Amino acid sequence: MTDARGHEISSEDWSSKDSHMDKDNHRTGPTDHEQHIAALPPSEVQQTTTSLDSQKTSSHLQNTRSKLGLHPTAPIVEEHDYAGHSDLWWPKVRLSLKEPFAEFWGVFCMVMFGDGAVAQVLLSTDQRTAPGGDGFGDYQSINWGWGLGVMLGIYIAGDSGAYLNPALTFTNCVLRKLPWRRFPVYFIAQFLGGFLAAGVIYINYINGINDFEGYGNRTVPPSKTATAGIFCTYPQDFETKAGMFLSEFIASAILMFVIFALKDDSNKGQFSASGAWFPLGLFFLIFGIGACFGWQTGYAINLARDFGPRLMSYAVGYGHEVWSAGGYYFWIPMVAPFLGTLFGGILYDIFIYTGPSPINTPYFGLGDLFRPKNAIQDRVETQKTQGIV
Amino acid sequence: MTDARGHEISSEDWSSKDSHMDKDNHRTGPTDHEQHIAALPPSEVQQTTTSLDSQKTSSHLQNTRSKLGLHPTAPIVEEHDYAGHSDLWWPKVRLSLKEPFAEFWGVFCMVMFGDGAVAQVLLSTDQRTAPGGDGFGDYQSINWGWGLGVMLGIYIAGDSGAYLNPALTFTNCVLRKLPWRRFPVYFIAQFLGGFLAAGVIYINYINGINDFEGYGNRTVPPSKTATAGIFCTYPQDFETKAGMFLSEFIASAILMFVIFALKDDSNKGQFSASGAWFPLGLFFLIFGIGACFGWQTGYAINLARDFGPRLMSYAVGYGHEVWSAGGYYFWIPMVAPFLGTLFGGILYDIFIYTGPSPINTPYFGLGDLFRPKNAIQDRVETQKTQGIV
Amino acid sequence: MTDARGHEISSEDWSSKDSHMDKDNHRTGPTDHEQHIAALPPSEVQQTTTSLDSQKTSSHLQNTRSKLGLHPTAPIVEEHDYAGHSDLWWPKVRLSLKEPFAEFWGVFCMVMFGDGAVAQVLLSTDQRTAPGGDGFGDYQSINWGWGLGVMLGIYIAGDSGAYLNPALTFTNCVLRKLPWRRFPVYFIAQFLGGFLAAGVIYINYINGINDFEGYGNRTVPPSKTATAGIFCTYPQDFETKAGMFLSEFIASAILMFVIFALKDDSNKGQFSASGAWFPLGLFFLIFGIGACFGWQTGYAINLARDFGPRLMSYAVGYGHEVWSAGGYYFWIPMVAPFLGTLFGGILYDIFIYTGPSPINTPYFGLGDLFRPKNAIQDRVETQKTQGIV
Amino acid sequence: MTDARGHEISSEDWSSKDSHMDKDNHRTGPTDHEQHIAALPPSEVQQTTTSLDSQKTSSHLQNTRSKLGLHPTAPIVEEHDYAGHSDLWWPKVRLSLKEPFAEFWGVFCMVMFGDGAVAQVLLSTDQRTAPGGDGFGDYQSINWGWGLGVMLGIYIAGDSGAYLNPALTFTNCVLRKLPWRRFPVYFIAQFLGGFLAAGVIYINYINGINDFEGYGNRTVPPSKTATAGIFCTYPQDFETKAGMFLSEFIASAILMFVIFALKDDSNKGQFSASGAWFPLGLFFLIFGIGACFGWQTGYAINLARDFGPRLMSYAVGYGHEVWSAGGYYFWIPMVAPFLGTLFGGILYDIFIYTGPSPINTPYFGLGDLFRPKNAIQDRVETQKTQGIV
Repeated sequence: MTDARGHEISSEDWSSKDSHMDKDNHRTGPTDHEQHIAALPPSEVQQTTTSLDSQKTSSHLQNTRSKLGLHPTAPIVEEHDYAGHSDLWWPKVRLSLKEPFAEFWGVFCMVMFGDGAVAQVLLSTDQRTAPGGDGFGDYQSINWGWGLGVMLGIYIAGDSGAYLNPALTFTNCVLRKLPWRRFPVYFIAQFLGGFLAAGVIYINYINGINDFEGYGNRTVPPSKTATAGIFCTYPQDFETKAGMFLSEFIASAILMFVIFALKDDSNKGQFSASGAWFPLGLFFLIFGIGACFGWQTGYAINLARDFGPRLMSYAVGYGHEVWSAGGYYFWIPMVAPFLGTLFGGILYDIFIYTGPSPINTPYFGLGDLFRPKNAIQDRVETQKTQGIV
Repeated sequence: MTDARGHEISSEDWSSKDSHMDKDNHRTGPTDHEQHIAALPPSEVQQTTTSLDSQKTSSHLQNTRSKLGLHPTAPIVEEHDYAGHSDLWWPKVRLSLKEPFAEFWGVFCMVMFGDGAVAQVLLSTDQRTAPGGDGFGDYQSINWGWGLGVMLGIYIAGDSGAYLNPALTFTNCVLRKLPWRRFPVYFIAQFLGGFLAAGVIYINYINGINDFEGYGNRTVPPSKTATAGIFCTYPQDFETKAGMFLSEFIASAILMFVIFALKDDSNKGQFSASGAWFPLGLFFLIFGIGACFGWQTGYAINLARDFGPRLMSYAVGYGHEVWSAGGYYFWIPMVAPFLGTLFGGILYDIFIYTGPSPINTPYFGLGDLFRPKNAIQDRVETQKTQGIV
Repeated sequence: MTDARGHEISSEDWSSKDSHMDKDNHRTGPTDHEQHIAALPPSEVQQTTTSLDSQKTSSHLQNTRSKLGLHPTAPIVEEHDYAGHSDLWWPKVRLSLKEPFAEFWGVFCMVMFGDGAVAQVLLSTDQRTAPGGDGFGDYQSINWGWGLGVMLGIYIAGDSGAYLNPALTFTNCVLRKLPWRRFPVYFIAQFLGGFLAAGVIYINYINGINDFEGYGNRTVPPSKTATAGIFCTYPQDFETKAGMFLSEFIASAILMFVIFALKDDSNKGQFSASGAWFPLGLFFLIFGIGACFGWQTGYAINLARDFGPRLMSYAVGYGHEVWSAGGYYFWIPMVAPFLGTLFGGILYDIFIYTGPSPINTPYFGLGDLFRPKNAIQDRVETQKTQGIV
Repeated sequence: MTDARGHEISSEDWSSKDSHMDKDNHRTGPTDHEQHIAALPPSEVQQTTTSLDSQKTSSHLQNTRSKLGLHPTAPIVEEHDYAGHSDLWWPKVRLSLKEPFAEFWGVFCMVMFGDGAVAQVLLSTDQRTAPGGDGFGDYQSINWGWGLGVMLGIYIAGDSGAYLNPALTFTNCVLRKLPWRRFPVYFIAQFLGGFLAAGVIYINYINGINDFEGYGNRTVPPSKTATAGIFCTYPQDFETKAGMFLSEFIASAILMFVIFALKDDSNKGQFSASGAWFPLGLFFLIFGIGACFGWQTGYAINLARDFGPRLMSYAVGYGHEVWSAGGYYFWIPMVAPFLGTLFGGILYDIFIYTGPSPINTPYFGLGDLFRPKNAIQDRVETQKTQGIV
């Protein structure tokens, strides 16, 4: 086997090279599987492909994955000798749904820690028997919970890009060439993750809720014993609709702007936070959004984190008020994050990003709006060239 | 000496290569010594073995270690010129018991910081003379204490895999081929670490306890001056048995699920947290479990951390109530972590893990239950091939 | 193509080398773009230059940038195929103003999080309906907000050196050869970042402010419902002018001294914090200044963070008291940081720094004061040699 | 020039290799300059020496440094073209005193942040006008202050080994071959750092102290308005002498045990925390000691941090009570840390450390006590061989 530089290299060399690329926490740039594949030298791609072709079922698998909007080749390391179990039905299913499963469990983890923190702090408010005499945590514990929930969720969901938020998937589709066909399957996975995690939190804290509200009572703010705030966000009562919307919009814009900065290795100076530093950066970012913009509306900034658990709280009996509270506030954390992250992303691309983005095309990409057919065709072609769809 | 690529290499080369492998904080995968040995190219293994064979006592040492379920070759760096003291009796003992000592001191450190934090916060509740006027810490200090106790404990116990928890050893035996013969010796080391650390905490805080409870009094919750909670966990009084069990079960499942994710370099994206990032990841994980699931039962999630100190508190005179409190709650943090971590580990292997695991065999490994003889034989053979037992 | 060592190397080699240099988070030293350019071997500089020369517009761009005091070559990665959009007017503007934009958004981010944290904590003081029953954060949340605001701001502003503070730019001009011509354009960007971020915070929290002060009221400390402290700092009322000045001076000196230590790779031991560790180090530094020196004057230590938002608070109607409060205290956080950072920097250079600094010239650089013409000429020549101006 | 592998290499190669070794944050082991020198291949040592010999003043410098117990060659990077200022008197002084200056400023930084945090929290206790309504920080702020003060102090004092504590220097002399002759000069530097930093804190907070105690009053606990606790530690009043001693002893033992673990790359598993991770590890360690063992005696664990500031508080007028308080408690934080760190270090060497240590000699090194002459001779010879003295 010969590499591009004309040296003979042993297979050991390949694996070390391979593992270097795979394991290197400091590499820059590619945030998604396709980009990883695209970045490999041709011979490596071939090798990867070959090893997958040797699976008899692989073409079926690739079809399934393509239909779901995923890359035909699932992200999996070669060293894992999955040949041994590759013809079992479940590993095949898992390979087909690798990224959705990753998003599901990432959001699940995030909501478990986040809602769990709210539950613990809220239900133990003022409890004298706690060590320290003042409950089992304070508002900062909630910042910790959401921050580290996102951080650990990213570790869990590494294979899918770890978006954990439909609004982030959406803006990456618009500005970073993430294929649109992937949006619905990610969306469903993220929503289900939030929905089911809220259910587990409910079961876990059911005795505490009964103790706090009185047996069987389930109320929504502004009730004085309201526990609905464990699951999803409710706004401060002095806040106007515009203020609520703005608060979610600003927090979402900050979220996207900073994430783009963390992932942007062209804006590197020496301070790139992609790779191993990214999850820690997200801890600080989410902590900060909670500590600095979390008061008015509870920093939902994520449909999966807010609507999913809200639906669950409705299902377990919190009543119609989960929708009507705050003047039917519930739609704001569904809509504002999409607009906010898009705005934040555009802002970043206008002022800082030098890489490929619709913003970096004539008329800031608005030109494409007048020739949609061409624009879509271009996009699809690019994706095909890069082997994305 | 010639390497696989046909270049002559000096011994200096070897050592630099060696030290690269040793020092590299970012390498992925192997969480145990055997895997490390197994991963070495043949010539290096030979070299390591040779240098150990040159010890006259090494075959005796290897026997002792094998009997304890440990790998025949102790994890030790060559550069340490232990030839100079290798025939002293204590270094030989230390080499035989390297991993158990590591687990012992890791758990010792964890419980010192964890129980120490509870002691300080509990005993200084409401103290006006503290700077800030409200005691020497709050509930969050306890999250810090356990989180960083585990983190520093992992640094101490690097050589043994740093499990620090019998339930984690157990689930790694079931799902990650850690040899079962190692379970008992690790168990004893972990238990003793927790037991003795609790004793040191008791001695250290004895005057504070006397001041808080009244001289010589030692009480258990729900007593208003109870200090037994310093050592081990007691449940909230509204909680049912099922709720207690569930709370421990869920927290343990999260613990194992996230640890498997952190250590799983096949699920890498770019966010792998194995290597140097692992202890920091565990800080956040333990902090999170305490801040989000620590209220109902005090997040024991570890027999060594709960039963060890509980026995010590019984020994120093807290009375029969340490067992009977909460309706003989004490068995829950002994049993639930084993079931919880197993459940969490299976969940991870079903939905995300693509590497070798019983779950990735026919019928999710349940097939093995009907042909136990074959299954055991397979396992032992694999271990022999890899030089584990 | 041949490198300095006489080996033939392929272009792939170059790019890997290139990317190694770019991606390496652990490299030491250069904190500014020029130094990066200066550090490249000649052939690489040529290559970079060539690829930029191929832009027809590049000479115009270089002129514009030179006039602004920036390095003629904008910091941009080659891999970004900006050829595709390099003749659009906006990408050209963005390339001309890359560093000022970076400083603007870095300060904007910092003030958003910092002022946002103060707003949330102040406006929700004592709020019973918060989970935990005591508001949405405490004084520590403000330490978190400023600390992580600076940290994330550095990630955003990597390309410009991420000073985010006119006083830091100033001291780097004096002691670290940052060209003086860059000071004004950075100053304007930093000031505008702080000014506009304060405006966004005001709009975001306007309903909360109305709720706290009473509709339409806007007051300044020592008013009991004062909210002006959200935007800029006001001193404790027992503090003397000298005490205020000293507090800002000391905090600024610590800031510069520690930053020089973090960036100084000649003082390395093994603990260098340059590169990827730098933003995290700054989080701890800013947190520490807030937790340890933030009481008397609110740790402004930055004209852009204090004067910018102060002007905005005046503009939105907090009245003349924003200037007269604390006995016309407002000038202290404008002046003291410049003197403090200069003092801290000189202290570091006298006692620790061994690299090139005016302090490491005869009479601690005071000699230059008596032959200013020569000194300036020397400086300009050095900059030309290094291709800085 | 030819390297061991028979390739011709340019001087550029050497420097890049050099800088790789110097800058590499992940390298293991050597915690002191001599060890670094000792680890270099012979040719590099020669080169370093040569370049220093070319200084005319170098032999004088080496004499001065040797007399102070320092390594003859000061730790300085070659790239710093200090030839330009090497014959100025101050750079020569600085080179002679490089390590003491490093220790001085490291301790200075540590005490500034630590004592500053206590001052801010103590003096603002219960202040209603703080954002959040409850003072400018709580007990945790003090944990943050000391933790990050040590962390940043280590960054500052990298060149000297960053001990920042006479007890740590002492135990490293006993167990890790740090030359005894270095102890006194480090001791003086550390003491002065603590002494003077306390003075700066006093000046900075003098108005706040006057406001808190009443103008001109300066009292010591148990006075209700005592502010002496800002500078040094005072024990809880229920605590016995034995309890005080034990508390300091245990905290110091933990400190040394964990530091040895963090620096021990033979106990590596994959979790080594030497290099870039060390300062962060120390942050968590100091935070933990403060949060878990900081109540009874205020976790002095350091003569420089306690006696230095205590003397300063005596000098500025806190009166004889600074010595007599707590039953002449002041000697405990002077003596206990030495015994505690020694105990902790021995414990680590007995149970975990496999490298060279007196503990790893016959009779745990006690044998040397009976043949002191030989032992000393051996030690000096080793140091000479390694070029340490």
